[in-house]
Amino acid sequence: MKPSLRNYMPERADRYFSGSSEQRRAARALFESVADLPLICPHGHVDPQLFAEAAYHFESPAEFFLIPDHYVFRMLYSQGVRLEAQGVSVNEGEDASEVETDHRRIWQTFAENYHLFQGTPTGLWLRDELHDLFGITEKLTPSNAQTVYDRIAERLAAPDFTPRKLYEQFGVEALTTTDAATDTLEHHRAIQASDWDGRIFPTFRPDKVVNDLDQPDWQEQIELLRAVSGMDIGGYGGYIAALEGRRAFFKEMGATATDHAAETPYTEVLSPAEADAIFQRGLAGQASADDARRFTGHMLVEMARMSSEDGLVMQLHPGSIRNHNRAVFSRFGADKGADIPHALDFTRNLKPLLDQFGSHPSLRLILFTLDESTSARELAPLAGHYPILRIGPPWWFYDSINGMRNFFAQVMETAGIYNTVGFNDDTRAFASIPSRHELWRRIACDWLAGLLLEGQIDDEDAYAMAHALAYGLAKEAYGL
Amino acid sequence: MKPSLRNYMPERADRYFSGSSEQRRAARALFESVADLPLICPHGHVDPQLFAEAAYHFESPAEFFLIPDHYVFRMLYSQGVRLEAQGVSVNEGEDASEVETDHRRIWQTFAENYHLFQGTPTGLWLRDELHDLFGITEKLTPSNAQTVYDRIAERLAAPDFTPRKLYEQFGVEALTTTDAATDTLEHHRAIQASDWDGRIFPTFRPDKVVNDLDQPDWQEQIELLRAVSGMDIGGYGGYIAALEGRRAFFKEMGATATDHAAETPYTEVLSPAEADAIFQRGLAGQASADDARRFTGHMLVEMARMSSEDGLVMQLHPGSIRNHNRAVFSRFGADKGADIPHALDFTRNLKPLLDQFGSHPSLRLILFTLDESTSARELAPLAGHYPILRIGPPWWFYDSINGMRNFFAQVMETAGIYNTVGFNDDTRAFASIPSRHELWRRIACDWLAGLLLEGQIDDEDAYAMAHALAYGLAKEAYGL
Amino acid sequence: MKPSLRNYMPERADRYFSGSSEQRRAARALFESVADLPLICPHGHVDPQLFAEAAYHFESPAEFFLIPDHYVFRMLYSQGVRLEAQGVSVNEGEDASEVETDHRRIWQTFAENYHLFQGTPTGLWLRDELHDLFGITEKLTPSNAQTVYDRIAERLAAPDFTPRKLYEQFGVEALTTTDAATDTLEHHRAIQASDWDGRIFPTFRPDKVVNDLDQPDWQEQIELLRAVSGMDIGGYGGYIAALEGRRAFFKEMGATATDHAAETPYTEVLSPAEADAIFQRGLAGQASADDARRFTGHMLVEMARMSSEDGLVMQLHPGSIRNHNRAVFSRFGADKGADIPHALDFTRNLKPLLDQFGSHPSLRLILFTLDESTSARELAPLAGHYPILRIGPPWWFYDSINGMRNFFAQVMETAGIYNTVGFNDDTRAFASIPSRHELWRRIACDWLAGLLLEGQIDDEDAYAMAHALAYGLAKEAYGL
Repeated sequence: MKPSLRNYMPERADRYFSGSSEQRRAARALFESVADLPLICPHGHVDPQLFAEAAYHFESPAEFFLIPDHYVFRMLYSQGVRLEAQGVSVNEGEDASEVETDHRRIWQTFAENYHLFQGTPTGLWLRDELHDLFGITEKLTPSNAQTVYDRIAERLAAPDFTPRKLYEQFGVEALTTTDAATDTLEHHRAIQASDWDGRIFPTFRPDKVVNDLDQPDWQEQIELLRAVSGMDIGGYGGYIAALEGRRAFFKEMGATATDHAAETPYTEVLSPAEADAIFQRGLAGQASADDARRFTGHMLVEMARMSSEDGLVMQLHPGSIRNHNRAVFSRFGADKGADIPHALDFTRNLKPLLDQFGSHPSLRLILFTLDESTSARELAPLAGHYPILRIGPPWWFYDSINGMRNFFAQVMETAGIYNTVGFNDDTRAFASIPSRHELWRRIACDWLAGLLLEGQIDDEDAYAMAHALAYGLAKEAYGL
Repeated sequence: MKPSLRNYMPERADRYFSGSSEQRRAARALFESVADLPLICPHGHVDPQLFAEAAYHFESPAEFFLIPDHYVFRMLYSQGVRLEAQGVSVNEGEDASEVETDHRRIWQTFAENYHLFQGTPTGLWLRDELHDLFGITEKLTPSNAQTVYDRIAERLAAPDFTPRKLYEQFGVEALTTTDAATDTLEHHRAIQASDWDGRIFPTFRPDKVVNDLDQPDWQEQIELLRAVSGMDIGGYGGYIAALEGRRAFFKEMGATATDHAAETPYTEVLSPAEADAIFQRGLAGQASADDARRFTGHMLVEMARMSSEDGLVMQLHPGSIRNHNRAVFSRFGADKGADIPHALDFTRNLKPLLDQFGSHPSLRLILFTLDESTSARELAPLAGHYPILRIGPPWWFYDSINGMRNFFAQVMETAGIYNTVGFNDDTRAFASIPSRHELWRRIACDWLAGLLLEGQIDDEDAYAMAHALAYGLAKEAYGL
Repeated sequence: MKPSLRNYMPERADRYFSGSSEQRRAARALFESVADLPLICPHGHVDPQLFAEAAYHFESPAEFFLIPDHYVFRMLYSQGVRLEAQGVSVNEGEDASEVETDHRRIWQTFAENYHLFQGTPTGLWLRDELHDLFGITEKLTPSNAQTVYDRIAERLAAPDFTPRKLYEQFGVEALTTTDAATDTLEHHRAIQASDWDGRIFPTFRPDKVVNDLDQPDWQEQIELLRAVSGMDIGGYGGYIAALEGRRAFFKEMGATATDHAAETPYTEVLSPAEADAIFQRGLAGQASADDARRFTGHMLVEMARMSSEDGLVMQLHPGSIRNHNRAVFSRFGADKGADIPHALDFTRNLKPLLDQFGSHPSLRLILFTLDESTSARELAPLAGHYPILRIGPPWWFYDSINGMRNFFAQVMETAGIYNTVGFNDDTRAFASIPSRHELWRRIACDWLAGLLLEGQIDDEDAYAMAHALAYGLAKEAYGL
């Protein structure tokens, strides 16, 4: 007979706070001071189409929670549940006959594996969303799965359950998407042309026309860039001019930032002649992997140059080896939970960029990492020195309670909070945004309560830091 | 006058629990629900000879606790106590005249240095073993050392103090040893031929006939393999067949797993012709270090192939630079506490193996690490995606309170507990097994109590997770 | 209306303690047992000139707290406050017209940015110094900045506010400086020739005549060495003899240790002919970067050889990429907060040195790191085995509450406390020494209180370990 542990569980309002009961009470007071602040969402992957139509509705509970979320389906996949059984669509040309199309069965499969998410951030977000958006307080089980499905489906169909209404209900103050350099931003145009006054802005992410010079679809990407920009891209000069043109267009459309992914933060300054020679090899389909690596490194410096001129805040997200699972990539494509981090070196790799622009008065560069060992060792000392640098919040696998606690512990002593930029939800799942921000705000206040109880900060500082971490830093850093 | 701190020390039943008094009470309730579960010991280095003879007795307290335990003698060595004074035997051909043979003096030297183990896991295991197995509650000191020696010696001589009786008393459900590919498993045969029904199984560890192709004793090892397998090993094909034969024999003898050590997790697929050419250079004594590195990487993939066919669970223990101290290795041989970890890269190194077998339905590969920075960065994302992968428990230097806490904090959020495999005691010291499992169970329950108090999990989950971590996961992962 | 959190803040005597109220009480009892022990300062960068004149006085609050402290001005610089505005002097030949010379304005700028230090160790040291040395209990703000300046200035001018009097008031038992191999130690001679009996000793740091063989000022440094040693340095033999001569002189002047910085802990044994050839290329201005790297690695082994003969304790501080900001280095010179750590490998790099001297009975080598991931992975296993090795305390960015907590958590389980060397304040700021030692002692006692409450150690051990960490280990390790 196991004794009940219910008495040890906190009331819901105190969840995610740690330590002694005094610390929890202090954390709660701090949290309550920021709980209702608007949400600044300066980096994410929500599809702008959701806001382009006033009456957009989500298709089903499985579509809403599961099918597009690689955090979810990769976990079931890791335990042997095939992606097909989870409704993940296959690449064109692949046999799609085994892809489950019955959303109720996909949901049932998920419910049967719900225990896999015990103690994971995905588990917490799902539970909090079910509670906050759908009023579901019982734990999902195989036996209640279909009833829960019904209740979610009913709510999804309600007239007020549109992305625009949710945006308002969530208290979002601004939300940015992430868009290819070759994107026409048609959905953003539709939003701006509508009478809705939500603030949805694009972010300029040129990876596909910058990083993959040695890949088979490079020429096609450059052709897309030529077409959308209307410029001649026969050489490196035209290519740069086209990119500058696209940035100007994004800025007109409200963008305040760019974003750049790369396997490493390698930077290098090529001479114009070298850059052109490599670019020409790319166009001719003759570029090597080393060409691509050097060109990417060079273009990061070039993008810093452009940002120093047009004022777009630059973000760098390095460190993921994308599409690590060859079979999954070949059948299902990118973003299937098979992106795996590796060890990074910012200190040496960023030096060429910093030699040129490290103290530039109108450049801001926000660094993210997937290698936590770089946080205290490299990022905090770099951002605690160079005026252009700021450190982005815990990213991806680290957007979690431990990831946040490590971030506060590893970054703040050397960099101080003012060299960080608050929170980014970085999600494709629009409806998870409030839960993610609430988790961040709770853990930030828990951290501050700990500092207060140790006499490291006083209450005036604690309240000011809570506000900055929850709202002010993100707003200021991205100019939103 | 220093005030007594006795009031702050927990009662013994609450040791190793952390946090507030509520958290300790919750941890204790969870621990009590798993404290009496049988012990699954799926990876270790206990000598099977202990169980081959019904009347086996341990020689002396020094032999029981100190002389074979590199965790102990390396610590005294680091503070200037020579290995000879600790009774460590020298290699054949070395002058053994200075090796202490008086076990009472060895024990006295240990007692004089017992403070070195303050705050170390070895100190906790020793204290708990002295208490639980020998009823010794006072702290070992230079002045009580000989009295304590007498009490231990008396107990060691008792008729019921045999490995077989201890196995039963400890509640071991299954225990596996680690055995060379060329081992005849005579002790295992003796155990199985006896009327004792303890479940002692071998594990297939072929390192010596796989890793060291460029070493002087390679030919000798291959000759041993030839002799024990009775097969012609003139070429790579015969070599593979011989290994497959040995695996089949181990499986007949009850093995459910293989184990592989390597300096790095490097893998590579060689063509049959390349593999044969390198193998031939090895036989001819002409292999280079690079040959050995590539051959080891290739054989890891080949072992994965064999495991996918015969179902033996594959374990990989990479990351130790063995025999780092040249002088100690030359005089005393291997396993003398001079194996030092280094930084690892799983993400790139395992890709060739995973490209071939990452989603194979009948393969399981358990990964261990000595580089904690890989836990959250690489192992958790890999195991949280690839169906064949599981993460082994904290190993060696990390089989400790902090090592376990870091493991829970770094692995579980991304991988979930079901991509881990519970606990391995991984010890040569049979009698330390209950203390090691108890430490793991206590720290696991302490972690779960923390999650519960933070509202991350409910009590139903906490009890289920405690059972899985203490028992279920290990049993399932190794098929025991 | 935000509720007051004052009740949650500890009284000053309990600051920096963590956990439950029981743990805080235990920590306080432990701390009180070591709070008044003398301060051992075995590694630091205080200018010996402070003690050479009996009547030395500090110039101003800005000079005392800000202008020489790169921990302070790099933080303001990172937020866009130019170094000139902080009074940092420029290199010879640079236009100095913009360097602020009004110390009151520098102080005001600092006060306006004081919030940047929230939650940082610099913030804690400053607050504690203002309190303990100047009786200032209110928080520094832009509006009270000039009043606070006046109060500090008044105290600085007091007759008893000299370094010698402070040394006595602080309870310093011994303090060592860090001095170039070519230093004449004139200030140390003046101290020893005076009637003051403070114990101020030099430390031999030969980096400039060892590390930079490929740099433009190498010949000049060697010429300085020739001049100060009076020896012919036409070849490697004379160079070694000159270094040995300088070591002997430092030892006569009371030195007990040497110190060595290097970008990595790389070591290598060159043959005498190779060493001489590289040395000659250096003298001729023809050495390559690889020459410099190999020569530095060789000289670390050679310095270990010398230490094994003359008994000077050897310290190694690797891992910082110095002067990372090209523009700042070019205008302001070295030590401007632009030194950035990178990933290290001790395991492979130290092997050549350890192969020669790892068990030498009269050598001690203390290792420091700026890469925390090496602490548990490499340093603790190395120091927990090799007799000559000890681990230095958390250094630079890690001389902080989290740095210390990580150090205890990562190092002690494997190495034990007796393979560590207590605390080094490692500061240029003499007056910050008591605050730094108090922080260390508080965090050490907090850690021990945690072990006690978890039943890992008993109270006898806790008191003994507190004494060792606060005083005994440093004194013993450096022979002070």
